[in-house]
Amino acid sequence: MNLLITINANYRYPFKVMLHSFFVSNPHVKDLTIYLLHSHIPSQQLEELERCCAVYHAKLIPIAVDPSLFENAPTNKRYPKEMYYRLLSPLILPEHVERVLYLDPDTLIINPIQSLWEMDLQGNAFAAASHTGLTEMANGINFARLSIDHEYFNTGIMLIDLAQARKIVKADDIFQCVSKYKKILILPDQDVFNVLYGDQTLPIDDVIWNYDVRNYSKYVIRSKGKCDWNWVMHNTAILHFCGKNKPWNNESKNPFVILYRHYMSLSEKKLCILQEEQAG
Amino acid sequence: MNLLITINANYRYPFKVMLHSFFVSNPHVKDLTIYLLHSHIPSQQLEELERCCAVYHAKLIPIAVDPSLFENAPTNKRYPKEMYYRLLSPLILPEHVERVLYLDPDTLIINPIQSLWEMDLQGNAFAAASHTGLTEMANGINFARLSIDHEYFNTGIMLIDLAQARKIVKADDIFQCVSKYKKILILPDQDVFNVLYGDQTLPIDDVIWNYDVRNYSKYVIRSKGKCDWNWVMHNTAILHFCGKNKPWNNESKNPFVILYRHYMSLSEKKLCILQEEQAG
Repeated sequence: MNLLITINANYRYPFKVMLHSFFVSNPHVKDLTIYLLHSHIPSQQLEELERCCAVYHAKLIPIAVDPSLFENAPTNKRYPKEMYYRLLSPLILPEHVERVLYLDPDTLIINPIQSLWEMDLQGNAFAAASHTGLTEMANGINFARLSIDHEYFNTGIMLIDLAQARKIVKADDIFQCVSKYKKILILPDQDVFNVLYGDQTLPIDDVIWNYDVRNYSKYVIRSKGKCDWNWVMHNTAILHFCGKNKPWNNESKNPFVILYRHYMSLSEKKLCILQEEQAG
Repeated sequence: MNLLITINANYRYPFKVMLHSFFVSNPHVKDLTIYLLHSHIPSQQLEELERCCAVYHAKLIPIAVDPSLFENAPTNKRYPKEMYYRLLSPLILPEHVERVLYLDPDTLIINPIQSLWEMDLQGNAFAAASHTGLTEMANGINFARLSIDHEYFNTGIMLIDLAQARKIVKADDIFQCVSKYKKILILPDQDVFNVLYGDQTLPIDDVIWNYDVRNYSKYVIRSKGKCDWNWVMHNTAILHFCGKNKPWNNESKNPFVILYRHYMSLSEKKLCILQEEQAG
């Protein structure tokens, strides 16, 4: 299985938490390769991340991206330029890589994801979930704002058929799109993805593959009661801690945040063990 | 490390959930032996439990106890006679076993327990936690009811120095105590333990080793705010789902119950894998 992450140095910690949760719920994945597209992560930190991955018998392949490629793209602290890397990943990743699962670092994996990895994309270049039905007004606004006539996809979790994507993804398209919509882009990379590639994206079920943890009650209502806590714990594979309040910074009585804290503790202890082993 | 459990057949499922949680938080325990004192678990079910333990490289040693030993002891559905087995375990377990950690099956292990296992008992036969400060009124009643002048210990988690315990535990004492207090025993085995062995028990911290999940707010108040969710997730080792409502039966928005449901899912999937492996 191939994962793609595009973090900057500030997201190393949540990446480790996500990684630990991945292996708690997917202990039988033995061949994990993680492609890390980045620009400024120092080599010492990359080596430390490689050692963390090795604890789980996963291979980290860091690929430095030239940041000047994105010098005209709108960025800020919450949306650093690394977020664009997923859009260009089909052009950056090695040619022999045929499929990759992009994961935001603000996620927890709590059930097996093999069936997502093996999903038939039916000729589409991408698979992604929308949070439609949770934020209908926002969706309506997005349709009008970006002149799209399909679901507004969340790009926090994306399965990418790289062979298909290499046929359609062009850097110039992305930069022109950013220029064209510059003033109205809200979530820049996600907006660009929806405008350019939304019609080549297979919709997948957000309640399983990209669960917005802010919206438990809305999922319960949308599912007419089916997707209660027990269902989520048994079926949802990827919890996505969307929004500004991140579970590693903010205390909360939200059970998802408490679950996140549990995985923080588990991953921290795993890394302490690693440090002891290195010292010993 | 040696664990002691004393379940009947109805508690096989929560035992598996507890066991799975044990190894998620204690992956480096490589030599776990689990002594199971029971009376009526059929051999087919025992073999299935042995296979479950083997998945984690743990060894299950079932020991059938003669149930007629307890024919005069008060029991009911919630308090079956198996609960007495822990009291007599020093006399039942093989002589070469020197120390054992008794665990109720309605528990989750969420942090390392090695330091409990290695604790210096300072000459005491037992270590256990009381829920003092959470249920002070109940404690006062217990002091009067049972004529004890020490903490009222919860026997859901007990570290037992078997060499010491073999010197003081006598079956006749237990049966006489049951007879004497028969009419006022509320939690029969626990009451008997407190009357007979409470003064030979080292108190340990319930917020770490025997956390009553019904009492989050009381722990926060008692600790003047220190033991919040983050602290619990990083420090509490054993969550104890005390009381009548069991997390595998009852839905709840209590975050501890949701965490329990997560471990139910993890352990179920682990066992499915086992079944597939057995079939294949």
